[in-house]
Amino acid sequence: MVNEISLEELQLAARNHGMPLEALRFDLTPIGLHYLLTHYDIPVVDPSSFRLEVDGAVAPTLSFTIDELRERPARDVVATMECAGNGRVHVEPHVVSQPWLLEAVGTARWRGASLAGLLEEAAVGEDAVEVLFTGLDRGIEGEEEQPYARSLPLAEALRADVLLAYEVNGVPLPPQHGFPLRLLVPGWYGMTSVKWLSRITVLTSQFDGYQQRHSYRLRQDESEAGEPVSRIQPRALMAPPGIPEFLTRARTVEAGAVELEGRAWSGEAEVAGVEVSVDGGETWAEAELESDRLGRWAWRRWTFVWDAQPGEHELCCRARDGGGGTQPLDPPWNVGGYMNNAVQRVPVTVTE
Amino acid sequence: MVNEISLEELQLAARNHGMPLEALRFDLTPIGLHYLLTHYDIPVVDPSSFRLEVDGAVAPTLSFTIDELRERPARDVVATMECAGNGRVHVEPHVVSQPWLLEAVGTARWRGASLAGLLEEAAVGEDAVEVLFTGLDRGIEGEEEQPYARSLPLAEALRADVLLAYEVNGVPLPPQHGFPLRLLVPGWYGMTSVKWLSRITVLTSQFDGYQQRHSYRLRQDESEAGEPVSRIQPRALMAPPGIPEFLTRARTVEAGAVELEGRAWSGEAEVAGVEVSVDGGETWAEAELESDRLGRWAWRRWTFVWDAQPGEHELCCRARDGGGGTQPLDPPWNVGGYMNNAVQRVPVTVTE
Repeated sequence: MVNEISLEELQLAARNHGMPLEALRFDLTPIGLHYLLTHYDIPVVDPSSFRLEVDGAVAPTLSFTIDELRERPARDVVATMECAGNGRVHVEPHVVSQPWLLEAVGTARWRGASLAGLLEEAAVGEDAVEVLFTGLDRGIEGEEEQPYARSLPLAEALRADVLLAYEVNGVPLPPQHGFPLRLLVPGWYGMTSVKWLSRITVLTSQFDGYQQRHSYRLRQDESEAGEPVSRIQPRALMAPPGIPEFLTRARTVEAGAVELEGRAWSGEAEVAGVEVSVDGGETWAEAELESDRLGRWAWRRWTFVWDAQPGEHELCCRARDGGGGTQPLDPPWNVGGYMNNAVQRVPVTVTE
Repeated sequence: MVNEISLEELQLAARNHGMPLEALRFDLTPIGLHYLLTHYDIPVVDPSSFRLEVDGAVAPTLSFTIDELRERPARDVVATMECAGNGRVHVEPHVVSQPWLLEAVGTARWRGASLAGLLEEAAVGEDAVEVLFTGLDRGIEGEEEQPYARSLPLAEALRADVLLAYEVNGVPLPPQHGFPLRLLVPGWYGMTSVKWLSRITVLTSQFDGYQQRHSYRLRQDESEAGEPVSRIQPRALMAPPGIPEFLTRARTVEAGAVELEGRAWSGEAEVAGVEVSVDGGETWAEAELESDRLGRWAWRRWTFVWDAQPGEHELCCRARDGGGGTQPLDPPWNVGGYMNNAVQRVPVTVTE
């Protein structure tokens, strides 16, 4: 892991905030603690003049106000969202971009209209292959001026849980989460869930805009086309036990029975189990995994009672999912520093 | 300014988030965009068992539930809050702590009960000199285990606008802003407004706890006692115009008339004026300053129309207040890197 980061990376870290890991104790992440990654600037949108346009390979083209979208049947989905770059700082050699440690995650209850229902109404053409989502946020990346735009394969766009979301945790979307409208694609990394969504375009060929062609691809070097990043890989995180030192965040715990707790999730398949190691990954034991009471797309709580003995310890946790997905002990590498789901390590000092 | 920061500083930057400066466009900072500095961990508090205890040099001691505090006369105050460490990264030589650039600010409408009213009921003793506020957050700092605790001189504690706040922007405090109760001291840097407030103790001598004796003091070297940090110094900030490049945040603006906008505030005295420079601080011109329609303790909006010519420019802004307070061109230095209100500098490329 790199020892220092640049001021440019700090500028990004100051804007794009993570979820302090003690917030793993909440079922739903309070607004303001959910992770946030904004490629460009947060736009100020006037909801009275806002329209969602639907065009491309559809007949007819459609246009909706927010009130019209709110009048459609509403659906609630609790989803754990994670940035594809979560864990990037732990990747070697160092990748320069938003310098996430492990906090780029959050879980919220999103409410919105069904995208599939709207696409049905738009009578998508037989030759359609993808659906493109364009936001109102605009900037420069890879020397190209662009609105933030990402596409989804048609079959993914038609999943019942994909929402045109206008509420989060019971309130209208705050500006930073895409007011007045965003896409919500449960199980996929966050770059897919386009914020400030203003246009849906049905495409008859694959979108090759910057965020699809260059960003969010798994490549070993810049010349490769690589595979696109899509579903969230399995991960377990723990709320660091005990109390922190302000500057170093070093943890101190009193000796005795300590209930460790955390959450685990996977966008690939249901979480099948969580293991904990109290010796830096040498030996592992099964944690108690709670039911999926928040639904398929939300994290699941886990607990583990640790008999903490005085001294220095390194706590770890790892999830596995029903599709055979696991977490590596060491960070994988790719050009963008994506999908690093290596196990969390929490050094702890236990006092008498 | 330092070129790199350490991973320990990054850990703090990932937790303690700033307000992206485009959010200067909002009168009230939406929850989730307001700056946040948490010394230790955000505690999870059960409101049903929560009590505010009032003790020390009072007769009788008092204890309140949140519902009892809500039944007292409510008062609303719109306050701009800023971290005393805002601007720390710009200070030379480098000070290692939470590495704020310029984003450690936010403005909110706080609602709560009057502290003065409560102290009146507690019949503060004649020999009282200070009031101590203790939070539920606990950690280690300067090798001392401590709850976060800060005091105020009695006269400041008795100001009418000092609140025991239980709501922000119309909703109950979210966990990260001190749920269920916090102190709110308008005009003072944020360290004063103790979150997760659980105890008020009237003191007959000065509090000498860590956060009062060691932190938040203006000292040229560690051996000095130094003066305590108190009121917010004047500052103007602008929302960076145009569009950003993702990684560098470099701004690009189209040539022509560009309305610059921002906010200005001071805890010392009312803002008297804002000036803008479009040539890196060589020459200055007066900006248009809006009224104090949000009240004395809130920032004031300002605008300035800039005739942007193609090329490279550095935009600056600075506020002055009615007490003679101004902003320096270069950062002042002290051991903690506090109260750096040097003028903001925004490099901009103007295209044809």
